[in-house]
Amino acid sequence: MTTIGVLGTGIVGRTIAARLAELGVDVMVGARSADSDSLEPFGALGVKTGSFADAVAHADLVVNATNGSHSIAALESAGDLAGKTLIDVSNELEPVEGGFPKPMASADDSLGQRIQARFPDLFVVKSLNTMNCTVMADPSIVPGDHVVFLSGDDAGAKDRTREFLAILGWRPPQIIDLGGIDTAAAVEMTMALWMRVPIARGHDAPRFNWVISSN
Amino acid sequence: MTTIGVLGTGIVGRTIAARLAELGVDVMVGARSADSDSLEPFGALGVKTGSFADAVAHADLVVNATNGSHSIAALESAGDLAGKTLIDVSNELEPVEGGFPKPMASADDSLGQRIQARFPDLFVVKSLNTMNCTVMADPSIVPGDHVVFLSGDDAGAKDRTREFLAILGWRPPQIIDLGGIDTAAAVEMTMALWMRVPIARGHDAPRFNWVISSN
Repeated sequence: MTTIGVLGTGIVGRTIAARLAELGVDVMVGARSADSDSLEPFGALGVKTGSFADAVAHADLVVNATNGSHSIAALESAGDLAGKTLIDVSNELEPVEGGFPKPMASADDSLGQRIQARFPDLFVVKSLNTMNCTVMADPSIVPGDHVVFLSGDDAGAKDRTREFLAILGWRPPQIIDLGGIDTAAAVEMTMALWMRVPIARGHDAPRFNWVISSN
Repeated sequence: MTTIGVLGTGIVGRTIAARLAELGVDVMVGARSADSDSLEPFGALGVKTGSFADAVAHADLVVNATNGSHSIAALESAGDLAGKTLIDVSNELEPVEGGFPKPMASADDSLGQRIQARFPDLFVVKSLNTMNCTVMADPSIVPGDHVVFLSGDDAGAKDRTREFLAILGWRPPQIIDLGGIDTAAAVEMTMALWMRVPIARGHDAPRFNWVISSN
């Protein structure tokens, strides 16, 4: 089975790494430095730890679970990225005092595209950013054929992403390939609605996902 | 039963007006001028016709089905809007040569907000813009509890919008009130994904809608 690096020690990185370890996958989580305090909880989860560069060197398949506002800086410090596949699950959100964070994506610009442009030798696949991390890591907690999207320029990297999704429990009918990395803008732009829906529905936890119903 | 004005003679205005007439609703469609050629098909549909101002004067409840790029200009020529409820179903899309039209909305800006700011005495409710017009007009063509959103600052106008939606066949569990008109940005931003989904799924007609599945 594939070896996976996870960049980022926040709730998203922790949830994905813990789930992978639970499934028996060899996974290393990377932080800004190998002795970061943020890496402490991972030992108990059976997850290896190191710097961003350690996690990239450890694995061919890397998950970007850093805060979207810092993702490019994190990747700049992550050593040799050439030929690696990066599954970018992050969103770039601007905090708003007393309000909802604002997604920075627009029709012309997305974090996924910016990462791909900055690291042309890296194979970037935007995926999983449209849902809560508990759903990313274990789609069986939401009923039905709810969906996950793929955006990326490299077919091989998308195949590796499909394999990664399958490990987590995603089934092929749930996976929708939108096209090139330019389509990352489409999925990143949905974050504004995603943040409003659980509030509007009167639930605390945004553990929902979208299903496509058609005639 | 309420009297409804529909602004716009394109496929969206035609589909909504035809459906309302079929349901026995008194509906008038408005065009740039009362003798516009674009009004010709409506006679056969049992729909009254007139200028934008005629349609607004005819009804308390007005549907904005004009092209989003021209909506503000259309409303500027529509006479006295004070106290009317406007259900804004439009999207502002920039055409792209050989590509997908680009939604102009961003986290800080939407057409719904701009219409409300330009016409402060009008009660604007953004709704229905997240789907194909055949689904707007007859939600029963798509199975399940697929959803429609409401964004608007006035509670009474939202109640009138709920009544309008009920006439078309929308059931209460399908209707999600997102909050004020500032939330129109969230729904307008989803258009980028909406355009990609039918292409990705290999279907010709974008007659689908979103269902929220949750645990």
